[in-house]
Amino acid sequence: MKIPTRLYLSEDEIPASWYNLRAFMKDKPEPMLHPGTLQPVTAGDLSPVFCDEPIKQELDDASPFIAIPEDLQVFYRAYRPAPLIRAYFLEKELGTPAEIYYKFEGTNTSGSHKLNSAAAQAFYAKAQGLNSLTTETGAGQWGSAMAMACAYYKLSLTVYMVKISAEQKPYRKALIETYGANLVSSPSPTTDAGRKILAEDPNTNGSLGCAISEAVEAAVKTKDCRYVLGSVMNHVLLHQSIVGVEAKAALDKYDVKPDIVVGCAGGGSNLGGLIAPFMGDRIAGKNAIRFIAVEPASCPSFTRGRFAYDFGDTAKTTPLVKMYTLGSGFMPSPNHAGGLRYHGMNPTLSKLYHDGYLEARAEAQTDVFDAATRFAKVEGVLPAPESSHAIKAAIDEALECKRTGDKKVILFGLTGTGYFDMSAYMAYNAKTMTDYIPTDADLDKGFASLPDIPQNR
Amino acid sequence: MKIPTRLYLSEDEIPASWYNLRAFMKDKPEPMLHPGTLQPVTAGDLSPVFCDEPIKQELDDASPFIAIPEDLQVFYRAYRPAPLIRAYFLEKELGTPAEIYYKFEGTNTSGSHKLNSAAAQAFYAKAQGLNSLTTETGAGQWGSAMAMACAYYKLSLTVYMVKISAEQKPYRKALIETYGANLVSSPSPTTDAGRKILAEDPNTNGSLGCAISEAVEAAVKTKDCRYVLGSVMNHVLLHQSIVGVEAKAALDKYDVKPDIVVGCAGGGSNLGGLIAPFMGDRIAGKNAIRFIAVEPASCPSFTRGRFAYDFGDTAKTTPLVKMYTLGSGFMPSPNHAGGLRYHGMNPTLSKLYHDGYLEARAEAQTDVFDAATRFAKVEGVLPAPESSHAIKAAIDEALECKRTGDKKVILFGLTGTGYFDMSAYMAYNAKTMTDYIPTDADLDKGFASLPDIPQNR
Repeated sequence: MKIPTRLYLSEDEIPASWYNLRAFMKDKPEPMLHPGTLQPVTAGDLSPVFCDEPIKQELDDASPFIAIPEDLQVFYRAYRPAPLIRAYFLEKELGTPAEIYYKFEGTNTSGSHKLNSAAAQAFYAKAQGLNSLTTETGAGQWGSAMAMACAYYKLSLTVYMVKISAEQKPYRKALIETYGANLVSSPSPTTDAGRKILAEDPNTNGSLGCAISEAVEAAVKTKDCRYVLGSVMNHVLLHQSIVGVEAKAALDKYDVKPDIVVGCAGGGSNLGGLIAPFMGDRIAGKNAIRFIAVEPASCPSFTRGRFAYDFGDTAKTTPLVKMYTLGSGFMPSPNHAGGLRYHGMNPTLSKLYHDGYLEARAEAQTDVFDAATRFAKVEGVLPAPESSHAIKAAIDEALECKRTGDKKVILFGLTGTGYFDMSAYMAYNAKTMTDYIPTDADLDKGFASLPDIPQNR
Repeated sequence: MKIPTRLYLSEDEIPASWYNLRAFMKDKPEPMLHPGTLQPVTAGDLSPVFCDEPIKQELDDASPFIAIPEDLQVFYRAYRPAPLIRAYFLEKELGTPAEIYYKFEGTNTSGSHKLNSAAAQAFYAKAQGLNSLTTETGAGQWGSAMAMACAYYKLSLTVYMVKISAEQKPYRKALIETYGANLVSSPSPTTDAGRKILAEDPNTNGSLGCAISEAVEAAVKTKDCRYVLGSVMNHVLLHQSIVGVEAKAALDKYDVKPDIVVGCAGGGSNLGGLIAPFMGDRIAGKNAIRFIAVEPASCPSFTRGRFAYDFGDTAKTTPLVKMYTLGSGFMPSPNHAGGLRYHGMNPTLSKLYHDGYLEARAEAQTDVFDAATRFAKVEGVLPAPESSHAIKAAIDEALECKRTGDKKVILFGLTGTGYFDMSAYMAYNAKTMTDYIPTDADLDKGFASLPDIPQNR
């Protein structure tokens, strides 16, 4: 069968259920712990901060499939199914015998896969009768997605944007404001957490961990308000499983079986969503796929982090999560333009990596932008810096096939577009972009912030 | 039949031929004239400037369908078919009984329909054995599209970008450079035309007419180089007919018959492409569609221009075209952020307007951004300012249906996205955006530049 360049599903084929990968794991991820009692958290512990239904999903490692509410399916039809693209042009450019496919999540205005979970979380907030939400954003994709979702569901939204990102990406900020959200540069004087960090270092660039602290604090102090998060949490990966389920459905239609599945990894939302149904089958022994996580060398939580219980935020107010982490005190260098700057990694993916189901590699950003530009010129799509980590690894695997003559099938996640990352591309074009590889001493500073609890000893 | 939110065609249904609207017109547009002899131009007159096959297409008002070369169809498959979207969310927001559809051409990286003709022109240049091309760009969509097309076909490209646009849109500039094109801010000291204009007014904002003069001059002075243009010309409208043919095919699938077709109008490339097959049927008496062109009040060539022979550029080097024009000396105010700033209008559309087949209206830019923001919040897509002119008219027509109770079917062209127009959205959000409506005296200055030839008396 001739495989088209774009393997579209029809609207009826948009998945009606999410794929809950944890239900398919023989060894489950460790539970989140309450930072005071060091006991597994309950729904009651989380309810002042998070919305009710996402909490239920967060704690559910038993239900294999979770239905997507009908009204949310209507929202999904505004921009899904997302295309699965056969990279014919890239294959030709590389001269590889490999077949390369990418699931392209950048066709919606927020420019990334983040909208899949933003839509779900806004839907549940509305259904619960809330008036407003708070969140944080680093590169700005999540903030844009939440702004779009809240505009649609007519919810008020405050976005704490990492200061250095807000400065580097004024148009991202403008996009978020165009959709009606209130944007605060973080750290800000509007919260205790922000004031404390500003007092310690008035010139700080900010960090995701710090912005999370501010957003959580604002949510718990506001009536009928909750906090939403775009990565790291298991319910986010659940929502993102629509990416993998759609990709698998499209490949199945053409009877294509991937040998390698590649995803970029920051907090893990894209990677976890993309691999979900493939990994479920892998665990059940139905395939022998190699799964590759690609992270920035400047923020290498998988490849150089510790598998430990850690806080999700700088102010150490969140539950403790067992994950690969650089420590909540770790801050990537401001010269890092490639996103994926969170200090930790989703606990399900951390467990899979620890148990050997998942490989990981770290890439320097100039190499990542080399791959991005090469890709853009032949495939057309200008990729987000985050997504380009996956492109780099996919190209390397395809070139390895060229060397060996193997006709492997490579699937990678193209999480989004780089339209709001042009200042990074400008630096790359002008050859002023530099790489940052933290020294062991740099990492030790981050590890020093890990909580000293029995589980970590 | 339930109509999906996105009416996708399959890859096999991408049109294999363009629709040459002129062949379906009983009264043809007037021929282009050589500015020296005032005789109709020949292919030989045009060949120093334009590529051979586009010249043939430019002069062909007899062939109803023109085949799209196979290799170009391969390029089209990288980003087509473009979605036709039922605006369910907008309909609900407006409370209108009308059905609203939009053909969305913004899913490719250049962000607009312009890539349809850029790909074709780059293909023909390559097929002709050329090494390089020159062009101009105003808002930057065309320059981005040509940069993508030339990257794909491995042609060298120089883009003369209107100075004020290059300043207002640094990221658009960066995008063009990322795809490997050489970008020159116009007017520039690199051409005679640029030097002359700079000598007269060193602080000029530049104009499309002036950038065209520079690009044409550079093309004729360079070996194996030609000039390409993204609007106004009939061969461009021919390439853009793929928009209308796809839209009609998707509507036909669901047996939907539009009552009103709306397109924004600058040089006419989108409008002419979108309406082509519908207008052909209208001329043959097969439908009674109302066609509405929407232009900016700051550059009102249809609604306040003259139907006269005029030059396409400021330096008065191009052939003379019979069109609605404000005069090649007209310059829209720099506060105009909405694109569509060319002084003239495609001759085929000018003829149709003159003969009563086409309506036109002009809109002020703050009203256009009101419509854009309203649309974005419910439909998700952040529209280009250009496209938003069509949104404004579509909303007005839908609200008229609400008043009268008519269940009309409205189709409009959503030509592109606004990701590179965030500075305009920032001005709109900050309420610092102003409107510019030229006075009659302002227009008279432009009309004074019209050539004084017998045909214009």
